Amino acid sequence: MDLARSPLALPFPAIPPIAGVTLRIARARYKEWDRCDLTLVELAEGTAVAGLFTKNVCCSSEVELGREQARLGSARALVVNAGNSNAFTGHRGREAVEAIMAQVAGHLGCQPSQVFVSSTGVIGVPLPQDRAHAGIEAALAAPPCSWRQAAATIGTTDTFEKGALATAVVDGRTETLAGIIKGSGMIAPDMATMLGYIFTDAAVEPVFLQALLSAANERTFSCITVDSDTSTSDTVLAFATGAAGNAPLASFEDAGADAFAAALHDVCRQLAHLVVRDGEGASKFVEVRVTGAASDDSARRIGLAVANSPLVKTALAGEDANWGRVVMAVGKAGEPADRDRLSIGFGGHWTARDGQPVAGYDEAPVAEHLKGREIVIAVDLGLGEGQAVVWTCDLTHGYIAINADYRS
Amino acid sequence: MDLARSPLALPFPAIPPIAGVTLRIARARYKEWDRCDLTLVELAEGTAVAGLFTKNVCCSSEVELGREQARLGSARALVVNAGNSNAFTGHRGREAVEAIMAQVAGHLGCQPSQVFVSSTGVIGVPLPQDRAHAGIEAALAAPPCSWRQAAATIGTTDTFEKGALATAVVDGRTETLAGIIKGSGMIAPDMATMLGYIFTDAAVEPVFLQALLSAANERTFSCITVDSDTSTSDTVLAFATGAAGNAPLASFEDAGADAFAAALHDVCRQLAHLVVRDGEGASKFVEVRVTGAASDDSARRIGLAVANSPLVKTALAGEDANWGRVVMAVGKAGEPADRDRLSIGFGGHWTARDGQPVAGYDEAPVAEHLKGREIVIAVDLGLGEGQAVVWTCDLTHGYIAINADYRS
Repeated sequence: MDLARSPLALPFPAIPPIAGVTLRIARARYKEWDRCDLTLVELAEGTAVAGLFTKNVCCSSEVELGREQARLGSARALVVNAGNSNAFTGHRGREAVEAIMAQVAGHLGCQPSQVFVSSTGVIGVPLPQDRAHAGIEAALAAPPCSWRQAAATIGTTDTFEKGALATAVVDGRTETLAGIIKGSGMIAPDMATMLGYIFTDAAVEPVFLQALLSAANERTFSCITVDSDTSTSDTVLAFATGAAGNAPLASFEDAGADAFAAALHDVCRQLAHLVVRDGEGASKFVEVRVTGAASDDSARRIGLAVANSPLVKTALAGEDANWGRVVMAVGKAGEPADRDRLSIGFGGHWTARDGQPVAGYDEAPVAEHLKGREIVIAVDLGLGEGQAVVWTCDLTHGYIAINADYRS
Repeated sequence: MDLARSPLALPFPAIPPIAGVTLRIARARYKEWDRCDLTLVELAEGTAVAGLFTKNVCCSSEVELGREQARLGSARALVVNAGNSNAFTGHRGREAVEAIMAQVAGHLGCQPSQVFVSSTGVIGVPLPQDRAHAGIEAALAAPPCSWRQAAATIGTTDTFEKGALATAVVDGRTETLAGIIKGSGMIAPDMATMLGYIFTDAAVEPVFLQALLSAANERTFSCITVDSDTSTSDTVLAFATGAAGNAPLASFEDAGADAFAAALHDVCRQLAHLVVRDGEGASKFVEVRVTGAASDDSARRIGLAVANSPLVKTALAGEDANWGRVVMAVGKAGEPADRDRLSIGFGGHWTARDGQPVAGYDEAPVAEHLKGREIVIAVDLGLGEGQAVVWTCDLTHGYIAINADYRS
């Protein structure tokens, strides 16, 4: 099936080359298609790495291995396979990943553990080792490609290429952070997968890079949801080549660490939003702002309960100011809430305050807001200082069409 | 909007009168419609009661009061209002419920706490006290009605009347258990609400009745899901009039207690299934059987994760044997699971065993099973003895149409 470009798509940014990062793509033909489907990123010696991986316990071998590799903190290459997720394939799946790691390590003269592999696509079919092998040889012989080409090659049913860019001044040098991501279009008969990669020429100690990435995750990737389903392959990796030559960042005591952390957070947020903007069938980008909760964690869980509620999401698709459904979703979150202190608003207009409809509530401005592409829902618990922002999209006929109408 | 009768509907059973239970209906005109929307059930003196209530913390005053009343164990009447849920209406909502309790208690010469009230429909609008008052007066003056008429009157967007029947021999007497239920069609701009009522002429001590109802709930109402959204008004009440004259059942030591418990479980299961069969847009009734889990609770949570997964539910709507989505849902449940011991099947055919696709797997019989109205998904964790069965429906364009396309 051909998917129309999401109405929420953003243009691809003008990302400059990043010293120490070389992108190449090739045709491994994991499926019967004529497109590049293998991405090989070569990273300079000394590149630090940090990672985030799916919490789904039925994860792929790529995720199992990647989690161990990221702990070692050192990377020389990344391989991304599109068209076959290699998930639920037993020991043969694991062998396929180890073969790729050994092949690339042999070429680069590095340890296999420095070669990171991700795969996305059909599940239950072991990655064909012959195709992977030939694809990697082809990629190694290919000229470098652009960020946009790499972003297109890691994609599957994505309807647009997704990239993000930020800079930070560290140690007197302007350093670049770039990210590409794929997700979360679904492929029948496959699973949604979010794969995100961030590259910077900054020098950062791996432990600090991991701490910064994990912190950014709490307010970005962990705060988006399309349909509450968690992929078995979700992965985000951050690579710092150090080619910019700054004294490696090791803690917030270091000059420029704050700026770098802010830039990393910015790239993560941009990438997370792009995934929501390509949610299956999405027609609206929805921000849920939760305030007054018992804690920040509680606020995030309440925000996700609202963002995952099929009744809230269908109401938004119908441009219906159905605040009662938001009340319901808050109440089912399993978090502290007091009906008689709860307030709900849309687009800056309160519709209910302190557990009751606002007297003389005028629906006209709210209805106008809901006709737009960017929706803001406010939830105030009136209990404490906890707050969070969560992003999602609406639930439309397009979601059903993508996931049900087309047979595998 | 007119909703077509669910293709999964079952005929209404031939429920006989139950001694000590008198059903009456009337027009309170809670909405601009010409149908009965108020049900008044009079119960004989000495009727025991037990209740189950929503865990949604933003619950209605009806639920708050009902939970307190059920603890007292004694009932003389039930009033069900359809068309206005009286939820999120602050102190005025509570006053409206207390006025109904006082009015009916005055007529029957009982305590207000013996009068149970439920409401379902529009939220955020206090129940109009004048209409409720006049409706109750009209109901008190009306002739008794049939079970089917009462089942129709408690409904809102339900597409068929839902009733269940079972019998048990207790103390040498054949006793009857009957139930009616409404749900879970959604009304824009309202919330889904499941209201279920069970009546029996058996004599049962309230504490034992509550224990039996709670136990039945664990394997019936708590094992169904349509869209993972939890209403603010969900209520199930069981009333035992004692008119059959048996020695009151007080524990499993009593003769007939096992038979009564089995019959109560049967009625609860029938009613729970009927709600799923009227799920918005449902075209398939889906049973998820989980075995080999670490515990029964764990099995139930895994079953609900599968049953609530939009990707699983859309695949079923598309008649797609997409076992990878079941794997994903098991893995995200947050429960013990081992990918390499996991097996998945449809309609008695295993598609994946021990973490890998079954060798020589033939999709034909599975595809045939998925074309039917009644789908069975088997999940075996291969870990322990825990098991559970969960019921749901598929997710179709009909769900989106009911909840998004029609404005409030």
